[in-house]
Amino acid sequence: MTRYDNLAGIIGERIEQGLYTGGQRLPSVRALSLEHEVSISTVQQAYRVLEDRRLVEARPKSGYFVSQKHELAALPAMCRPAQRPVEISQWGLVLKLLRSDPSDGMVHLGPGMPDISSPTLKPLMKWLSRTALHPDLRGMNYGDISGARVLREQIARLMVDSGSLLSADDILITTGCHEALSIALHALCQPGDIVAVDSPSFHGVTQAMKAFSIKALEIPTDPVTGISLDALALALEQWPIKAIQVTPNCNNPLGYIMPDSHKQALLSLAQRYDTPIIEDDVYGDLAYHYPRPHTIKSFDEDGRVLLCSSFSKTLAPGLRVGWMVPGRYMEKAIHMKYINTGATALQPQLAVAEFVRGGYYLKHLRRMRARYQLNCEIMTDWIKTYFPLETRVSRPQGGFLIWIELPEHFDSLRLSRQLENLLIQIAVGPVFSASGKYRHCLRLSFAAKLTDKMEAAVKTIGETIKQQLREHPGEG
Amino acid sequence: MTRYDNLAGIIGERIEQGLYTGGQRLPSVRALSLEHEVSISTVQQAYRVLEDRRLVEARPKSGYFVSQKHELAALPAMCRPAQRPVEISQWGLVLKLLRSDPSDGMVHLGPGMPDISSPTLKPLMKWLSRTALHPDLRGMNYGDISGARVLREQIARLMVDSGSLLSADDILITTGCHEALSIALHALCQPGDIVAVDSPSFHGVTQAMKAFSIKALEIPTDPVTGISLDALALALEQWPIKAIQVTPNCNNPLGYIMPDSHKQALLSLAQRYDTPIIEDDVYGDLAYHYPRPHTIKSFDEDGRVLLCSSFSKTLAPGLRVGWMVPGRYMEKAIHMKYINTGATALQPQLAVAEFVRGGYYLKHLRRMRARYQLNCEIMTDWIKTYFPLETRVSRPQGGFLIWIELPEHFDSLRLSRQLENLLIQIAVGPVFSASGKYRHCLRLSFAAKLTDKMEAAVKTIGETIKQQLREHPGEG
Repeated sequence: MTRYDNLAGIIGERIEQGLYTGGQRLPSVRALSLEHEVSISTVQQAYRVLEDRRLVEARPKSGYFVSQKHELAALPAMCRPAQRPVEISQWGLVLKLLRSDPSDGMVHLGPGMPDISSPTLKPLMKWLSRTALHPDLRGMNYGDISGARVLREQIARLMVDSGSLLSADDILITTGCHEALSIALHALCQPGDIVAVDSPSFHGVTQAMKAFSIKALEIPTDPVTGISLDALALALEQWPIKAIQVTPNCNNPLGYIMPDSHKQALLSLAQRYDTPIIEDDVYGDLAYHYPRPHTIKSFDEDGRVLLCSSFSKTLAPGLRVGWMVPGRYMEKAIHMKYINTGATALQPQLAVAEFVRGGYYLKHLRRMRARYQLNCEIMTDWIKTYFPLETRVSRPQGGFLIWIELPEHFDSLRLSRQLENLLIQIAVGPVFSASGKYRHCLRLSFAAKLTDKMEAAVKTIGETIKQQLREHPGEG
Repeated sequence: MTRYDNLAGIIGERIEQGLYTGGQRLPSVRALSLEHEVSISTVQQAYRVLEDRRLVEARPKSGYFVSQKHELAALPAMCRPAQRPVEISQWGLVLKLLRSDPSDGMVHLGPGMPDISSPTLKPLMKWLSRTALHPDLRGMNYGDISGARVLREQIARLMVDSGSLLSADDILITTGCHEALSIALHALCQPGDIVAVDSPSFHGVTQAMKAFSIKALEIPTDPVTGISLDALALALEQWPIKAIQVTPNCNNPLGYIMPDSHKQALLSLAQRYDTPIIEDDVYGDLAYHYPRPHTIKSFDEDGRVLLCSSFSKTLAPGLRVGWMVPGRYMEKAIHMKYINTGATALQPQLAVAEFVRGGYYLKHLRRMRARYQLNCEIMTDWIKTYFPLETRVSRPQGGFLIWIELPEHFDSLRLSRQLENLLIQIAVGPVFSASGKYRHCLRLSFAAKLTDKMEAAVKTIGETIKQQLREHPGEG
C-alpha cells in the first residue's frame, strides 16, 4: 500500500467513526505532514483520495472539510454474531429474483445487472461479430481446458492493478464468476463442512453451498471495513471452518472496500488456522477511485486464496466469461471445471481478449466508474429525500448496488409484493442471508440510467415503506 | 416406431446374430410381407433402412443380400460382469486427452471433436456475427435462468424426431451436454451413492461422478444392443443403485443404437426399481439412418428420464450450447444450473435458435450424417487393411467414433506413447472405464476429412500395434 493510501485510510476511518463530523474543518496539510512524518504531497494525495470517496471537500483557500453529504444517512448496523452454522434456505426468494424478466415493463431495481448500453462497449460487439466470421473458425473448437491463452494473458496483465503479478498459467477461465465460486467451494469442501461468510452475503455463494450441502456460518460484517475479524477469529477457534468466503472489494450488497490493513489481518488469521479464502472480486474493477483496490490475493504468499472474478459486472453478463486464480488448488479446480462445463464458450473469450488488448477495457472502466459514482450520489440523495428518516443506507465505494436498512420490524417481503403491483422490482433482504436474516432490509441497483421514471419509482418505494411503517408501527 | 423400422430392426438383428451371413440372399419382399403381415412397401422401406445401415445390398433383379463388407471385422467382446461399485480413477489420462492441442502438428484421432469445416455451418457464423451487432444488445444480458425461450422452442420442435412431444418449459439450456450430465448427477446423488453405467463409458460422466464422490458400477454392454439388461437387473437387485446412466443412441465409444425394444425394457426395469435414468443423447442426431432413433425419454411416462444433449457434436463444441429435459427433477436441476454457471452464454443460444428455425440445422445434419457414414466405411476398411487380423472393431450406426479391441495383453498406453513420437494422437481404452479397464482397447475419431495423411497415420498405428504384439506376444 502507498503512503498516501495508508494516510487516507486513517483519516477516512476517523471520519467514519465520527471523530470529525459533517462540515467540520480537517487538519491542515502541514499539520498532517508533521503528525504522520510524510511529505506535503503525500498528504495532498491522501486528501485527493478522500475527495474521490466523497468523504472530504476542498474549499479554495480554506482547506479541507468533512463532506456535508456524508452525514446524511446513518450506516446499516452489523448483524448479530452467528450462533451456529446453518443450512441454507431462501432458494425460493432467490429464484424469484432470477426469474424477473427484463422485458416485463417493470422498473427493475433488483438484479445486479450492469449498464450495457455504454458506447464504450461497442468495440466489444465488433470483436464478437468479427471473431464469429473468422475463416479459421477459431471460436468453434473446445479450446484449452484452462480457457483461451490470449485471454488469460490479458487478465494477468489487468490483475497487476489489483497488486498481483501472475502469469497466464495461474488463471483458469470459467463460465462467469458463478462457476468460479462453485468450483472453489466444490474443490475445498465436502457435504456437512462449514464455510464462514461475510453477512449479508452474495446469494450465488450461499445457494452453491446449499447445493453442496455445506453449512454457512454468517459472520457479522461492518458496513465500512467488512467482515469482523474479532468475530471471525472467535468462530475459527470454535468451529472447524473449512473455508472463508468474502467479497472485500465493492462488496455485494454493502458496497464497502475492506482497508488493506484488514485484508492483511484476515489473511494472517487464515494462515494461523490454515484455512483457505475464497475471494470474490467481481466488482473490484468498479471501485470509484483509481488505482483500484488491492485484492487479498495480492498479499497471498502460500496460494491459499482462491480469487474468483468475471467480466459480467464490468462488461456484460451474457458473455459468461469469468476466471479464477485457484492458487495451490489449481489441479482440483481444473477437474471441477472439466466436469462442470467441459469448457467455456470460446468466441466471447476471444472477443474480450481483443477488447482488453486494444485498451478498450480500461477506457470503458473509466467511464463506468464515473457513471456509477455519480449514480450512487443521486440514488443516495433520492433515498434521503423519499425514504423515512430512520432509514440506514450503505456508502458504496464502488459498483452499482446500495443496501438499505429499515427498522427491525419492517417487512421487505410485504413491500416487495406491494411494489410488484406498482410494477417496481427490488431485491429483498433475506436473499442475502443463508438463514433468512435481513427481512427489514433491501438492495437497490443504480446501474441503469437514472431517469425521471427511476426517481418516481424510488419515491414510490419510499412512500410504500412509510405507509407500511405507519400501518405496522412495531412494538418499540 | 414405424412398421418398417420395426421390421428393419428384426432383420438387422438376425444378421447381427449371424442367422444370415455375408453374401447370403435374404427373404424376398413378398415372403416377408406374408410372414410379418405388412404391405410390400413397408418391406421395401425396411430394406432401404438396412441398405442405409450397410447391412444389406440390393442386386438388380436378384433381390436383397447380406452385405459382404459386414462380416469383415469381429465385434468387440462384452466386458466381464461388474464385481462391485468402484471409485473413479483415470483422471490423469483424461486430462492428457483434454490437454491435446489441436495446433501442435499432430494427427488427432483422439478427441471427440466434430468436423466444423462444412459449408453448411456458414449461416450459423453469420447469425453469430449478426446477433453480436444487434442494436438491442440481446445477447448481453443474463437472460432467463432456463435459457433463451426462442432456442428452447426450437429444441422442442427438433425433439419431435426423437419421439418426444415437449414444450419449451420442459427444457433447460446448459453450457454443453457436460453441464447437463453434471447437473443430473448432482441433482440425483449424494457422495457415496452408486450409479450404474454402460461400459465402456463416456469419461465426462465418470469424472463427474468422481467429483461428486459417486461410485460407478460398470455394467457389461453389448456392442450392438447396448447395456446388458440381465446384468443390470442383477445389479439393481444387489445394490442400492441411485441412477442408471446410459448413452443409447450412437453410443460413445461403441457406436451402437440400442433397439427400441431394449430401450423400453430398460425403462421398465428402471420403473420396477424406481430408479431414474440419465440419458446422454449427444450423438443421437448423427445416426446414419433417418428418421433418427428414439430416445428412452420418448417412452418415459413418469418423468424419471433426465435427457442430456447439446449442439457440440452436431454443430460446434465452442458454442457450449447444450440442454436437458430433467422431467420430474426440473426444480432441482434449475438450482444446480444456477449455482453451476448462473446462466449460459446468450449470444450463441440466439444464433443457434435462428440457425435451427431457418432450416439450416436439418440441412447440415443431412450432410454430416452422410459424411460420417462414408468416413465410417473408409475408416473400417483402413483398420481391416492395416491392423492385425485379430482386431475387433465396433460397427458405428452413427457419430464419428470407432472402438477397437486388441488381444487382452495388448497395452494401448504403450502404443499411445510410441505414437506420440510419431505425431499421432489416439484415445486410450482406460479413459472409458471408471476402474481402468480396456487397456487393450482404443478409440479413434473419423470426423475429420480422411486424407492420405490420415490413411498413413492409421497405417502407422496398425504397424505399431503389430510390432508390439510381435515383441510382447502375451502368454496365450
